[in-house]
Amino acid sequence: MVKTYIFGHKSPDSDSITSSIVMANLEKELGNNDAKAYRLGNINKETEFILDYLGMDAPELLERVDDGDNVILVDHNSPAESVENLENANILKVVDHHKLALQTSYPLFLRFEPVGCTETILFKLYNEYDIEISKEIATLMLSAIVSDTLLLKSPTTTEDDKFAVEKLAEIASIDVGEYGLEMLKAGTDLSSFSIDEILSLDAKQIDFKNVKSIVNQVNTADIDDVMSIKDELEAGINKIIDNEGLDLFMLLITDIVNSNSQVIALGKDACLVEKAYGVKLVDNTVLLEGVVSRKKQVVPIMTENA
Amino acid sequence: MVKTYIFGHKSPDSDSITSSIVMANLEKELGNNDAKAYRLGNINKETEFILDYLGMDAPELLERVDDGDNVILVDHNSPAESVENLENANILKVVDHHKLALQTSYPLFLRFEPVGCTETILFKLYNEYDIEISKEIATLMLSAIVSDTLLLKSPTTTEDDKFAVEKLAEIASIDVGEYGLEMLKAGTDLSSFSIDEILSLDAKQIDFKNVKSIVNQVNTADIDDVMSIKDELEAGINKIIDNEGLDLFMLLITDIVNSNSQVIALGKDACLVEKAYGVKLVDNTVLLEGVVSRKKQVVPIMTENA
Repeated sequence: MVKTYIFGHKSPDSDSITSSIVMANLEKELGNNDAKAYRLGNINKETEFILDYLGMDAPELLERVDDGDNVILVDHNSPAESVENLENANILKVVDHHKLALQTSYPLFLRFEPVGCTETILFKLYNEYDIEISKEIATLMLSAIVSDTLLLKSPTTTEDDKFAVEKLAEIASIDVGEYGLEMLKAGTDLSSFSIDEILSLDAKQIDFKNVKSIVNQVNTADIDDVMSIKDELEAGINKIIDNEGLDLFMLLITDIVNSNSQVIALGKDACLVEKAYGVKLVDNTVLLEGVVSRKKQVVPIMTENA
Repeated sequence: MVKTYIFGHKSPDSDSITSSIVMANLEKELGNNDAKAYRLGNINKETEFILDYLGMDAPELLERVDDGDNVILVDHNSPAESVENLENANILKVVDHHKLALQTSYPLFLRFEPVGCTETILFKLYNEYDIEISKEIATLMLSAIVSDTLLLKSPTTTEDDKFAVEKLAEIASIDVGEYGLEMLKAGTDLSSFSIDEILSLDAKQIDFKNVKSIVNQVNTADIDDVMSIKDELEAGINKIIDNEGLDLFMLLITDIVNSNSQVIALGKDACLVEKAYGVKLVDNTVLLEGVVSRKKQVVPIMTENA
């Protein structure tokens, strides 16, 4: 049987990594024994915390796929965020909760729902196929949902996410509030990263109409702590803008305790942030009150105003 | 509550019409009381047979949707085959078994599977949501699966389609072989149609790479019968080629009893048919042995050779 490569997006977050593992397990349970989880980049600190908690290894790194390889995409569908040579691979399935950016020349299995996290959809699939959710799988699912929804507080959170976390917490015997905050805080530890690494940790290329942009998001329990290296961050951002020919780079520094984001916006179209949110950038930065979700509170409003 | 418009593709076939009705019923069962089935064009003879059998009216015709209207697409996802102004509508869900051609700026519910018929996916959804399938709904589902798979003989047929038909036949108390053949034959009655109508009955705009094409398919129990009006058909086809600026028009006359298709190919790239199938067109026509599926046996091979 031909191997099936399963992976989430580049600059993987906890949802991309855990969903790859959980999807590979589902495929095996369904009889696809050569399904294997991969990652398209380095594991972040939060994901490291989850895998350490479970004593699991990270999936193997995947650089590119060959023509005709079977792949399953989780937590993304945009070719720009996917593996090299995806256009010549055979996409069997996609399980995702993002907007639709993929096109194919053949029919395939798609399971998209507008929920907070890919793992919430996988939780449903396990139930539909009547596959038992082990303690380990439950912990992976729950961790990603808590991560993507910032402890079910982000506006991306749906009733389905809440229901899944409730059921998964029982299976995993986890106190969600306690475990979740510890996990989120682990993800805010930037001490071991270079400036370049911080700026690519959760960076997404998103074009707001014709405004070529990257929006990067880092979580923190203390905005001032991250802002203490603002000069270094700005120098790094300006380098990326030059190299990639960007019109805008937004660095969202998201306070996971108080649910706000400090944004650093650079590039010739930085004023778009001012227009979109009715704010004034001072020294390239401003606090966006209540903004924590790139998908719900940044992409639509920036696109609308571009 | 805002109305939700549910519809299949233009030039609707039995799957598009019945799936709209079956999906609207599912939405109502799930609490979306303002969901309503529509059609984007005239009902064909086969669909008329199904609705007559059940004593049901055809869905209302929908010309266009307004900005911000809620819509659910079934049996298609390509904007080219959909309603006017789709780009400004709010697509809530898509249930389909075709290749992926849609892009959105927001996340949505997608349920695609590479099965023979949209109704097979809807059959699964009813089961997943534990919604009872009435005799009427079962007949609609079964009819469309039999139609799309030509009595489960087309190469598009999957085990899931066969399983669904088996279960649905029990619920509907229908002899599938007998009912199915009668239904398919009803669809082959072209006597009441003008040439222009025949040529748009099941016409799909499909570009094979840069070859701008329309592929139309008509089912028959007797190829000679249809070929007796070949001159009139060719005149009509040439008019469409001129009006639409096409490179190729393929009319597949599919023998539902013997599972072959006579093709009439016109346009400057008609030779692509010869290259793709290793055949020679004589007087613009040739028999394609064993070819019954536009999706599996025409689109991929024509695209590959274009």
